[in-house]
Amino acid sequence: MARRPNIWSSLVHYPVLDREGNIVTTSVTNMDVHDLARSSRTFGLERFVITTPIDIHREMVLRVAALWQEETYARRTPSRKLALQLVRAAPRIEEAAAMLEEETGRRPFVVGTSARRLEGALTFKAVRDEIRADAAAPWLILFGTGWGLAPQALSLCTHVLEPVEGADGYNHLSVRSAAAVILDRLLGRP
Amino acid sequence: MARRPNIWSSLVHYPVLDREGNIVTTSVTNMDVHDLARSSRTFGLERFVITTPIDIHREMVLRVAALWQEETYARRTPSRKLALQLVRAAPRIEEAAAMLEEETGRRPFVVGTSARRLEGALTFKAVRDEIRADAAAPWLILFGTGWGLAPQALSLCTHVLEPVEGADGYNHLSVRSAAAVILDRLLGRP
Repeated sequence: MARRPNIWSSLVHYPVLDREGNIVTTSVTNMDVHDLARSSRTFGLERFVITTPIDIHREMVLRVAALWQEETYARRTPSRKLALQLVRAAPRIEEAAAMLEEETGRRPFVVGTSARRLEGALTFKAVRDEIRADAAAPWLILFGTGWGLAPQALSLCTHVLEPVEGADGYNHLSVRSAAAVILDRLLGRP
Repeated sequence: MARRPNIWSSLVHYPVLDREGNIVTTSVTNMDVHDLARSSRTFGLERFVITTPIDIHREMVLRVAALWQEETYARRTPSRKLALQLVRAAPRIEEAAAMLEEETGRRPFVVGTSARRLEGALTFKAVRDEIRADAAAPWLILFGTGWGLAPQALSLCTHVLEPVEGADGYNHLSVRSAAAVILDRLLGRP
């Protein structure tokens, strides 16, 4: 599959759930930024947005991403430069979507992901086919940290995906693993 | 897909390559253990073996895994208990394979994975079909840390997989992401 300039991912740190179902803001972790940037780059996405309302976290993420663009680091690990180039930051999901709309001139489709089977969830095949059907359409794919995207986040979505199914109902993947599998199912070969 | 009692994964810390192509031993990291245990459990594997010649690392991994079986932790995060239950440790790949042979009475097939396209590499579909064709056959799927499995590790393999292809040749996934995608392609639905 060729690269698609109008597909973005976002790792959402608010609003997400904690283990008791409360709505919380999670901390940005460096490994999530690297892993999801590398997965986003591998599967041909144009940008990867860290969504968090915490100003200092957005600032830190952008500084780390910028560091990898500097010649010393970029020469040492060119693949990391290419991945971290994708990184942007937004305070809220709505603003990540607005950034994408501004770049493409079209209101993006927003895809919610969840480990739970939500009402009206679409199959991977259905969303994959829809992405392929209109090569110019912008898409924003949301991944939730913590115990997953809160209902308020899912209510912003135009599409909600079925969960990645495990062997026997168990599907407690890390967000790093889940994001990679979901991007592969939507955008990977064949 | 139902659970398969005879498919194991292993995260290999020796012999693997560093960025210059030297053969090295990498350090075990806690997040790799958790992420790969969770992916292995999700895709129905029976065991996940940390392979490292460093005694203290094997000991530490087994202690951490045992901790999650204790009632206090298990009650708080049951899904983590189920994932960490899979964890075993072996000093070398040959011993991981021997453990699997001992449990099943059959010499296992050993699958090597790589981000590079190696000679004689098989497609995901070919290996998936072979896994399904004989439900009793034992399989050991190897993931390399660092810059990937060294030639000595690959020479122990009965099967070598094609790389996870990116959009335009870029495929620098973390081992956490790559392992999840590979297990999904071999064992996930549909």
